[in-house]
Amino acid sequence: MDSSNSTPEVSEITSVSKSDNRPISTIVIIVAMQAEALPLVNKFQLKEDDNSLFPNGVPWVRYHGIYKGLSVNIVWPGKDAVLGVDSVGTVSASLVTYASIQALKPDLIINAGTAGGFKAKGAGIGDIYLPSVVAFHDRRIPIPVFDLYGVGSRKAFSTPNLLNALDLKVGRLSTGDSLDMTATDETSIFSNDATVKDMEGAAIAYVAELLKVPAIFVKAVTDIVDGNKPTPEEFLQNLATVTAALDKAVTEIVDFISGKSILAL
Amino acid sequence: MDSSNSTPEVSEITSVSKSDNRPISTIVIIVAMQAEALPLVNKFQLKEDDNSLFPNGVPWVRYHGIYKGLSVNIVWPGKDAVLGVDSVGTVSASLVTYASIQALKPDLIINAGTAGGFKAKGAGIGDIYLPSVVAFHDRRIPIPVFDLYGVGSRKAFSTPNLLNALDLKVGRLSTGDSLDMTATDETSIFSNDATVKDMEGAAIAYVAELLKVPAIFVKAVTDIVDGNKPTPEEFLQNLATVTAALDKAVTEIVDFISGKSILAL
Repeated sequence: MDSSNSTPEVSEITSVSKSDNRPISTIVIIVAMQAEALPLVNKFQLKEDDNSLFPNGVPWVRYHGIYKGLSVNIVWPGKDAVLGVDSVGTVSASLVTYASIQALKPDLIINAGTAGGFKAKGAGIGDIYLPSVVAFHDRRIPIPVFDLYGVGSRKAFSTPNLLNALDLKVGRLSTGDSLDMTATDETSIFSNDATVKDMEGAAIAYVAELLKVPAIFVKAVTDIVDGNKPTPEEFLQNLATVTAALDKAVTEIVDFISGKSILAL
Repeated sequence: MDSSNSTPEVSEITSVSKSDNRPISTIVIIVAMQAEALPLVNKFQLKEDDNSLFPNGVPWVRYHGIYKGLSVNIVWPGKDAVLGVDSVGTVSASLVTYASIQALKPDLIINAGTAGGFKAKGAGIGDIYLPSVVAFHDRRIPIPVFDLYGVGSRKAFSTPNLLNALDLKVGRLSTGDSLDMTATDETSIFSNDATVKDMEGAAIAYVAELLKVPAIFVKAVTDIVDGNKPTPEEFLQNLATVTAALDKAVTEIVDFISGKSILAL
């Protein structure tokens, strides 16, 4: 699915030992919005922590429980303390990924969320993608080598068996801190060969790689970026139904993971 | 200096008690580039940690020492492990600010670095700014309230005595993850009423506010954004000389801080 003329990946998110055959024990699912998180919290029958793992003052929320033998943690960056909206974007996502890995030492990070899709690359509303590669499209640093750092292209952890078993689409993910898309963003997204566009994935990939935790990405298409409708309206219109499809996919993924080693994914 | 029609600040970075009159004990200076950090490390005669405060695998570097009775820490996000360039930008800056506050519980964060300046707002090469307000210019989320979250405008900790004592310019700082500037960025920077533009400040302000540590920003102008020269060339050309001016200003600021309480700044 990946064209050969796209930006080369910097590296792959894995330092998994070839002999690591123990079953996966702990997973952290990073979800940026409460509307995306709560149906999953209910599905897995998780409970919000009474005593936060995180420092005083941060709005980050962890939901935890045991589901089919797995310690399942959903971490949501919470509502902004002043403004009351979900703490979306790369800065909050980086921080909660870092703090969650430090506190929970997970075997696997799953970043689940909604995304914009490009119909020119085959995406439709409600499609679920398991991106193979993630990169940034709004970090332009036109100095040699810094340019590659800015794009920050990384392979997701490879899960061929999971892909075979479930009905998920493959494509590349491009991340930026804006919900809209300028012409410059579009050029970078095209250069990233992306089918889906979100606001957190590449930042979570960066932190997961820093701390050597395998990471995968599950992205459900709420809006068609190269379509006729304005993104904010289409996004809000489809959020509830597409979140249901996302939750179904995440549940199937967690069901598949249960009892398997990281190398069997 | 701040016009009345710019974006309103979300909040101010301070939870300092009105009665907190003890002298400042520990400061953390966050510096994104090694070329900016090393002259200060030498000036304050700091030493690199033998055993990192930070997790295995992260490239973050802390230099530490006692200078005029202050515990001075310079934290630099280090070189990217794969690409070897400075880990610039908001994601790395957020992470090192978070981890440094957790590890060191500083009384004050100082983010020191180079910046682009707007000559239309009075900036010239080598000018040193102590920004009053910081905000993002590349996080456009056109949904009510989310739009304000994206801009993330915050007041720096107020330091009227420091400003009176030293020869520093006042203006607003706008932050984005790109070294260049698109027309859309320019509109947002104008809306932020910014005189200087960097790649870390607003992210550091966000984390400092989350964890309730006062933060100030010292920005030295390496390039004129609304001038005739291409930013990357002008930036690299002026980096060494402007860094010397930055180091002089930071030294004067730390000299001023020595022996004073946070409320006396």
